[in-house]
Amino acid sequence: MSTISFAGVYAPLPTPFDERDRLDVDRLCAALPRWLASPLAGFVLLGTTGEAGLVDDEEADRLVEAVRPLVPRERALLVGVGRESTAATIRAARRAATGGADALLVRTPSFFKTRMNDEALVAYYTAVADSAPAPVLLYNFAAATGVNLTPSAVARLASHPNILGIKESGSDLAQIADLVALASPSFTVLAGSATTFVAALGAGVSGGILALSALLPEACVRLFTLMRAGAFDEARQLQQRLVPLARFISTEHGVPALKAALARSGVDVGLPRRPLVPFDERHLPALHDLLRGFLTEGVPV
Amino acid sequence: MSTISFAGVYAPLPTPFDERDRLDVDRLCAALPRWLASPLAGFVLLGTTGEAGLVDDEEADRLVEAVRPLVPRERALLVGVGRESTAATIRAARRAATGGADALLVRTPSFFKTRMNDEALVAYYTAVADSAPAPVLLYNFAAATGVNLTPSAVARLASHPNILGIKESGSDLAQIADLVALASPSFTVLAGSATTFVAALGAGVSGGILALSALLPEACVRLFTLMRAGAFDEARQLQQRLVPLARFISTEHGVPALKAALARSGVDVGLPRRPLVPFDERHLPALHDLLRGFLTEGVPV
Amino acid sequence: MSTISFAGVYAPLPTPFDERDRLDVDRLCAALPRWLASPLAGFVLLGTTGEAGLVDDEEADRLVEAVRPLVPRERALLVGVGRESTAATIRAARRAATGGADALLVRTPSFFKTRMNDEALVAYYTAVADSAPAPVLLYNFAAATGVNLTPSAVARLASHPNILGIKESGSDLAQIADLVALASPSFTVLAGSATTFVAALGAGVSGGILALSALLPEACVRLFTLMRAGAFDEARQLQQRLVPLARFISTEHGVPALKAALARSGVDVGLPRRPLVPFDERHLPALHDLLRGFLTEGVPV
Amino acid sequence: MSTISFAGVYAPLPTPFDERDRLDVDRLCAALPRWLASPLAGFVLLGTTGEAGLVDDEEADRLVEAVRPLVPRERALLVGVGRESTAATIRAARRAATGGADALLVRTPSFFKTRMNDEALVAYYTAVADSAPAPVLLYNFAAATGVNLTPSAVARLASHPNILGIKESGSDLAQIADLVALASPSFTVLAGSATTFVAALGAGVSGGILALSALLPEACVRLFTLMRAGAFDEARQLQQRLVPLARFISTEHGVPALKAALARSGVDVGLPRRPLVPFDERHLPALHDLLRGFLTEGVPV
Repeated sequence: MSTISFAGVYAPLPTPFDERDRLDVDRLCAALPRWLASPLAGFVLLGTTGEAGLVDDEEADRLVEAVRPLVPRERALLVGVGRESTAATIRAARRAATGGADALLVRTPSFFKTRMNDEALVAYYTAVADSAPAPVLLYNFAAATGVNLTPSAVARLASHPNILGIKESGSDLAQIADLVALASPSFTVLAGSATTFVAALGAGVSGGILALSALLPEACVRLFTLMRAGAFDEARQLQQRLVPLARFISTEHGVPALKAALARSGVDVGLPRRPLVPFDERHLPALHDLLRGFLTEGVPV
Repeated sequence: MSTISFAGVYAPLPTPFDERDRLDVDRLCAALPRWLASPLAGFVLLGTTGEAGLVDDEEADRLVEAVRPLVPRERALLVGVGRESTAATIRAARRAATGGADALLVRTPSFFKTRMNDEALVAYYTAVADSAPAPVLLYNFAAATGVNLTPSAVARLASHPNILGIKESGSDLAQIADLVALASPSFTVLAGSATTFVAALGAGVSGGILALSALLPEACVRLFTLMRAGAFDEARQLQQRLVPLARFISTEHGVPALKAALARSGVDVGLPRRPLVPFDERHLPALHDLLRGFLTEGVPV
Repeated sequence: MSTISFAGVYAPLPTPFDERDRLDVDRLCAALPRWLASPLAGFVLLGTTGEAGLVDDEEADRLVEAVRPLVPRERALLVGVGRESTAATIRAARRAATGGADALLVRTPSFFKTRMNDEALVAYYTAVADSAPAPVLLYNFAAATGVNLTPSAVARLASHPNILGIKESGSDLAQIADLVALASPSFTVLAGSATTFVAALGAGVSGGILALSALLPEACVRLFTLMRAGAFDEARQLQQRLVPLARFISTEHGVPALKAALARSGVDVGLPRRPLVPFDERHLPALHDLLRGFLTEGVPV
Repeated sequence: MSTISFAGVYAPLPTPFDERDRLDVDRLCAALPRWLASPLAGFVLLGTTGEAGLVDDEEADRLVEAVRPLVPRERALLVGVGRESTAATIRAARRAATGGADALLVRTPSFFKTRMNDEALVAYYTAVADSAPAPVLLYNFAAATGVNLTPSAVARLASHPNILGIKESGSDLAQIADLVALASPSFTVLAGSATTFVAALGAGVSGGILALSALLPEACVRLFTLMRAGAFDEARQLQQRLVPLARFISTEHGVPALKAALARSGVDVGLPRRPLVPFDERHLPALHDLLRGFLTEGVPV
């Protein structure tokens, strides 16, 4: 995977579970053509949106094994492999690379939040990147983990030959600006939130891994291409149209809402796994209202 | 395990790892006599202090299998079994009960923090308690998980016949008072912090699971018996003597410091597992100073 | 004011404003007999509940001047004099002392929150206490000010001959326990929240300044006397009965609700001053429900 | 003041105090030529940097009276007039307008933080804007006040004919993007932090009121003109050079450091007022190091 192609918009793919809470790999394989038909730069298996924390190792392996052959080489397939112990992450990284992952998305460990200072995180990521048979993408999501991978820790990691960039899911402008200052041809900074994607691109990031792009890949890619073309006002207008839906899904209702929205758009990705609670049907009308304008008879417009 | 015996002071036992980051069950077995010789009401395997999040399922099973036969029945042996998915927690609960756990300590799931509202947590704990072959102790540690098991959720769970109480690790007095108001002969409230143990007992809790009690069990039990006897001033004076050490270990330096302090007191519980960083030797003199007064030639006084 | 009499329950008095947002001193004077008939140890003018931040200096002087002659010497009359600059606080302290205040309640300055470290706060309170012609009570209310007067700063101030104690409005048990450890015959620790008053007394505080005690002085004093008498269970039961009302007023709806509740109980303390919004009448039924059981035909029971 | 000229970079002017903590208006007047010689669009008296909360009403009037005649009409002179009560803010607004302020900067009230919801803040700003004889600029600084003026409240205020924009001091990208979406020829969005100014401009703000621009006006204006000209990379490089100094002053050491830095650059703005503590001389070498490269023999380069 070349550095240049790593800029762009990536979709984190949901992980389907059936009515009995079992992983349903076939359902994901059946849904893949919808994303392959879009202009997305690539896909992420087992990211946060993919309910990674609720998936066992053996299930994760099956998922990668099934999906890899279906994704053509010109699209990047990233796989989330963050675990709590360094050793477990390294083992997961090896299995995912063996399974064909183009790159590995490694979320910060968080079991001992207060101990995860720069020193511990630099040692963790260095050990993982040293051992991983595929390139590593750092993944900072402080709102979800309670751990912040600081720009000063990232600065120490950015020159590692097997670390190719960072997904920063936060929306603190100071932190984003600090990361953008570390960007280089060999270190890419990706945003993690559709609600602020245009603003983050304006601040200098090179792309994004956006939950919303699993639902509306064309619109999310369009935000990116408009900004690349200098059409800032048009990009901001499209962004504003997307914000209510993006907030509904990412901030207010989460993965269960994304799965419900995908179902509405004709893509069956099953149910969330417990302890996640399925999307509350009382909110379906609000979701359908938000989807209107983006879907015509279930098809994105 | 009767309700009455459940009040008291419990020690969370550290999990030993060797120089190559491998679980070292034998080292824990060799250390057990130190705690068995103390007046502790019982022990917790695989709590937060036991680095539960860094231990694999197979390792957890080996640990329970080895320790259970060494703990006499009049002491309670609790085992931490919280996992992120409901199904994984239930599987872990069954294995721990099979291994002989007297009760199961179940930390809130936290992978999807913002989705873990009362509804999700009540459903989670109900499913776990319905399926677990041993009694369940709720475990709320919002500072570590970013999830708060609210008193209103606890109120809905307290009457479940297989839920016997809660370990509340927070120090918010309003929350502790609300939990104390839910206490009954069949629902016990335990504190989780040595630094505020006397104050929490004053507020009405029935005991505690305190990291410090792995190091200084006699002193921690003494806090409890003094308060029970109405010797409030004496209890507070002893508490104040313990606070600097308790803070050093729990707030400032964590499990690595506890392991170093235990080593100093003659109890070998090995190293922390990565990504935890071993206790920084530059802080050893400060730790030894704090231990002075509590150890004489490595023996508690 | 002797040290011994300083333990106990104090009511912060609301400041009445009329329909045109003007201070209405007469209305407060007319309401005073209700509180004077209660067993409260004393009263606070111009605390947070007294909307101190919304009252001008000239108005503050008028208020003290009018109320002081009506409060007998055996009840303590405290006056809030915290301002943002050290010089302005000292001027306010002198005026309040001239007006007859028995003690001065001095809230932490907060305009430059991040600069209010221990050094700055110790210098501030030392300067104020050095210059004030009446004893000073420290006042920490981090949730309202964003500034925390740490126990280590308090430890440096507790020996000042003109500082007689602290009102700690927070509910962090560790902080309360640290302050209790500093208590002495010449340094009193008072709680600031009715919702946790019994628990705080259990943790060792000597009394409280509680908004709820302006509404239900007899019940609040009863919490105190029950705890003093060792009737812990009875105290906790009364506390639990009070908690829903205390939360409604202090956490959920604030001073406007307290004023509405006082009106319901027959005590007219006018309206809150803008930008405070008057109590929303749609919540009146809920408030009246909560008051039932504490008032019979407008009279406390 | 036309809307078009309101885009740009504004310097908040420090308020000088002498060795005896007294306002020193003459010192500010003597320092003004340094800023008048710069390309700044305008100035703010009595902003946060101007220690507004520590200045009495009478002092504020004197300051405006002295400075106004020295500022030519083609530069905007803004005056901070936020007070805690609505009535006091309106009085301050009238005095500042009488004194010649071109616009009024109105910080959110914060004495009753938890009561300052959208409803209260919209009522507050509407009342102030209705009564103020000069245009009002909203001012949100949640980190300093603990109150957040939400984009939904701002949306309701943006169409008020006497409200011309907002200074948003926060660095949350979602909030900035929401405000930018409200921008119009009659509603300007200004950033409030030099550390993220370029990123905020990239996200669409129209200018800034930056403490650093009181020290390095030319450099701050250059960030703005570079971004306007589409020279994003050059702007980011200059931004990165400024970040360490900007952080030292705004995040780490505050107004006392700004005053010390101005003194080093040959501009005497006196001391901070208590309870602010003067800049610690032990940090002077670090400050001088940071200034090197921006000053040559005390003169900006």
